[in-house]
Amino acid sequence: MSILRKDPVSSGWVIIAEERGERPTTFDTTKVKKRAGFCPFCVGNENSTPPEISAYREPHSHKDSPGWRVRTIPNKFAALRIEGDLNRRGDGMYDMMNGVGAHEVIIETPEHDANMALYSPEKMREVLNMYRERHHDLMKDRRFKYIQIFRNYGYSAGATLDHPHTQLIALPITPRWVKEELSCAKEHYEIKERCLFCDIINQEIKSQSRLIFENDEFISFAPFASKFPFETWIIPKQHRSDFKMISDAEIKQLAIALPKTLLAIHRALSDPPYNMILHSAPQLPPDRPGAETIVHDYHWHIEIYPRISKMAGFEWGTGFYINTVLPEKAAEYLREALTEEIKIGAPGPKEQTS
Amino acid sequence: MSILRKDPVSSGWVIIAEERGERPTTFDTTKVKKRAGFCPFCVGNENSTPPEISAYREPHSHKDSPGWRVRTIPNKFAALRIEGDLNRRGDGMYDMMNGVGAHEVIIETPEHDANMALYSPEKMREVLNMYRERHHDLMKDRRFKYIQIFRNYGYSAGATLDHPHTQLIALPITPRWVKEELSCAKEHYEIKERCLFCDIINQEIKSQSRLIFENDEFISFAPFASKFPFETWIIPKQHRSDFKMISDAEIKQLAIALPKTLLAIHRALSDPPYNMILHSAPQLPPDRPGAETIVHDYHWHIEIYPRISKMAGFEWGTGFYINTVLPEKAAEYLREALTEEIKIGAPGPKEQTS
Repeated sequence: MSILRKDPVSSGWVIIAEERGERPTTFDTTKVKKRAGFCPFCVGNENSTPPEISAYREPHSHKDSPGWRVRTIPNKFAALRIEGDLNRRGDGMYDMMNGVGAHEVIIETPEHDANMALYSPEKMREVLNMYRERHHDLMKDRRFKYIQIFRNYGYSAGATLDHPHTQLIALPITPRWVKEELSCAKEHYEIKERCLFCDIINQEIKSQSRLIFENDEFISFAPFASKFPFETWIIPKQHRSDFKMISDAEIKQLAIALPKTLLAIHRALSDPPYNMILHSAPQLPPDRPGAETIVHDYHWHIEIYPRISKMAGFEWGTGFYINTVLPEKAAEYLREALTEEIKIGAPGPKEQTS
Repeated sequence: MSILRKDPVSSGWVIIAEERGERPTTFDTTKVKKRAGFCPFCVGNENSTPPEISAYREPHSHKDSPGWRVRTIPNKFAALRIEGDLNRRGDGMYDMMNGVGAHEVIIETPEHDANMALYSPEKMREVLNMYRERHHDLMKDRRFKYIQIFRNYGYSAGATLDHPHTQLIALPITPRWVKEELSCAKEHYEIKERCLFCDIINQEIKSQSRLIFENDEFISFAPFASKFPFETWIIPKQHRSDFKMISDAEIKQLAIALPKTLLAIHRALSDPPYNMILHSAPQLPPDRPGAETIVHDYHWHIEIYPRISKMAGFEWGTGFYINTVLPEKAAEYLREALTEEIKIGAPGPKEQTS
């Protein structure tokens, strides 16, 4: 059982999850972890993962056996466990609670070498349907305040398995950076009576200089104050606070916007590692003040951070980032990468039709 | 000239410093940057750095020539420049200002291969004297609100040169993570009328379980809610808010505590990369509310983060860290590493006397 501990100096929480890590003496700080040839996410290896929670399958195929197209399982090395009570308690001046939550893995495709940047709209739509389904299902558990959907791509972005997958962690508390966004959005709404994110979307569409891709329902753009080179956000144009309420029509459009955006990054930066993070509104008890306003002032979105720069002491000390690429220039490169003519980085691979 | 841009969604600021980075197309995400054989920080190469700001030198030696023991220079690739006005301005809904500040490098020793973990107390004392001198001097410039002293050790911690050095950035605004600490400390003080950090020190000394090293003036310990495996803090036992006010007697003790703590990390984890960050009180105009209370509620300290784990999508999305090593166990390993008998990681190198 992992433990949640509160940092008294930042009010942030930390998950202490010993079972995930190796013994301290076996830490290796220099070598890239050797990947075993065996992939537990590949077809035929269904028994080497915990039993599946949900899957989209071919007719007449069976649970935990081949025939799936998208498959969700509990993380074998879960940072949080679904069983038990939080048991909030103190240790002298410090605060802690049990590591209750959920940690799931969505295996996106049976194809080990597939790449989300090349998913067909149909493939992407199925994966997004699974995101919505799991988000919706976990939000029914009132112990959970926040669902974090995220995707680590490439070893230096923290991925330990190559097979395309997304992770989902359900948390018993709203994380501090989400709280920070919520409070900025709330403050803006109180002054302007408009959604902060809707204002951002309007300005980005008007100025065009940081826009990367646009369709009927979504834009992707380089944020004005990008923390990292080539940071990219994807956001629904209509005001939407809660990802799990995404409509089928919106999923259809996101299934185009997301792979297109990833393809631009893939081409412009030669298939870099990245982290993708989905920010959505937290769950608030209906009797809690503010619960009804969050639908007006928050706006879900996806953030993508290519991991091509290092975070060093200055950033760690201050939360003040140094970005060496002007966001307007990053957007220009990414837009150019989307037009086939340009030859930046690796040659654009053929469209994949899985 | 770099630009500071404010993220409307987090209220954090970002430095956009184009001149530091390479062209986007030359980003290399896989290979370790090749180090040139030439070291601009070595003795005899004083002309390849900008003119020195301050140095501790042998008698009769000259500025920008050999004979120095510690030497401070402006960073050649500065993220912020000392000249000019902030020129705060808007761009539609967004906020920005000029990148005015200071970015200095303290070259700690003429010895290219020296290691702070092995500095003699005398050597360490001179380096700490330079920290204090530069902190003090920059704080005289009323445009600067915060001085960040930090040290990146090893390539994966962001160091681009091996020669032992510390950096110092003077900022025109108080960074958000420092503000967060200040607000937690203030809140604690308002309730308890005691310093939050003093309370932490008392509990750590009483419990002993997370203590790593202790002398008359300092303790080093693994924080209760460590964000990273083997995170270690060093803090003065007496209540002190502002690093630049450190006394000679305290410097003498810190000159023992700091290398001892780094030596424990060096031995236990086989010389890992790390970031070291010094947190001190920001500068507040004397007429600003709160300026007089900060001396009561804030407490300067050093944080050391060995870079042996990766930050991935979950951490980036939430600010919620997963730490795979129990802080009590990390402290035990580090304490053991300080007793010569134990054989964890690399064999402890001989004490260095530079």
